[in-house]
Amino acid sequence: MEQVDVQAFWKLLRPEVVVWAVAEHEGQRSICPLGWTMRTSGAPPMMAISVAPSRYTHGLIEAAGAFVLAYPGRELAQATLYCGTNSGRDTDKFAQAGVTPRPAGQVPAPLIEECVANLECRLVDQVTTGDHTIFVAEVVAAWVHDRPGPLLCLVDASSGYETLLVEEGKYRFGVVRE
Amino acid sequence: MEQVDVQAFWKLLRPEVVVWAVAEHEGQRSICPLGWTMRTSGAPPMMAISVAPSRYTHGLIEAAGAFVLAYPGRELAQATLYCGTNSGRDTDKFAQAGVTPRPAGQVPAPLIEECVANLECRLVDQVTTGDHTIFVAEVVAAWVHDRPGPLLCLVDASSGYETLLVEEGKYRFGVVRE
Repeated sequence: MEQVDVQAFWKLLRPEVVVWAVAEHEGQRSICPLGWTMRTSGAPPMMAISVAPSRYTHGLIEAAGAFVLAYPGRELAQATLYCGTNSGRDTDKFAQAGVTPRPAGQVPAPLIEECVANLECRLVDQVTTGDHTIFVAEVVAAWVHDRPGPLLCLVDASSGYETLLVEEGKYRFGVVRE
Repeated sequence: MEQVDVQAFWKLLRPEVVVWAVAEHEGQRSICPLGWTMRTSGAPPMMAISVAPSRYTHGLIEAAGAFVLAYPGRELAQATLYCGTNSGRDTDKFAQAGVTPRPAGQVPAPLIEECVANLECRLVDQVTTGDHTIFVAEVVAAWVHDRPGPLLCLVDASSGYETLLVEEGKYRFGVVRE
């Protein structure tokens, strides 16, 4: 075991499930792909997500007090890259990414029809960390695709993954082989 | 897409990397395996973890203001199950799990020699969620094994995983095939 720069460690932290934070407020809406999410309570069911304050979705979550967590599958690797590298301030990410918003039951943000699963989340608390905000939210409804496939992940070059999209030196998206 | 009970959704949330929170205070120390962890800041590097207040390690983290995150690999599935289903109040988990504590550089908790990687973490903030506490910590040092293998995960029955240990109806541990 040897001491390494912390940045060298992060490359080992694979697989990491990718989640889209979807938020809407007063007719404005956006999609922000995240890798930094976790469960944080069993009863009531709660999720925590880390979002950079510079993201357009960050302000929409604060304004709406709610969001949807949509879990993309293998068909949405390109859409995830698009949503992660463009801003919803300038573009309609839903149209550009080719995904279908569908009304949720209990929050203003839409579900994403093409995703493997969607969670409706009500904001409960938020905490500023170094350069991100942790949003803590109660999961008030869950939706699952009729034939849910594997969740899109940030992956390494292991043979257990079906690699879907590689941006050299930056991102490698894939799913665990079924 | 159909609405489901939230508990039915969690079964889809695989893979989930397993991490040991290791804490020590005034000669007392313990290991608490976690699935609910995430990165939460790039600069400074920070991690967030969710720990139930009933866990012995929870009190040790609060008292010490620091902890180690140790990432087990394929050899530590059984040790992870042991540490997750016994309390450090009653037993020396290091001896029972057959792992080797090694002094860290900047925190009182030890590193775990057999783990793929270890992060030394200083507690910065904590937040109570439904039935867990989020500990927010700065990563002040990182250690990586000379030949790091894949990280132990909670997995499903997909063919991309090498399954290591199954507790029917509860846990399935594995690693992504290399």
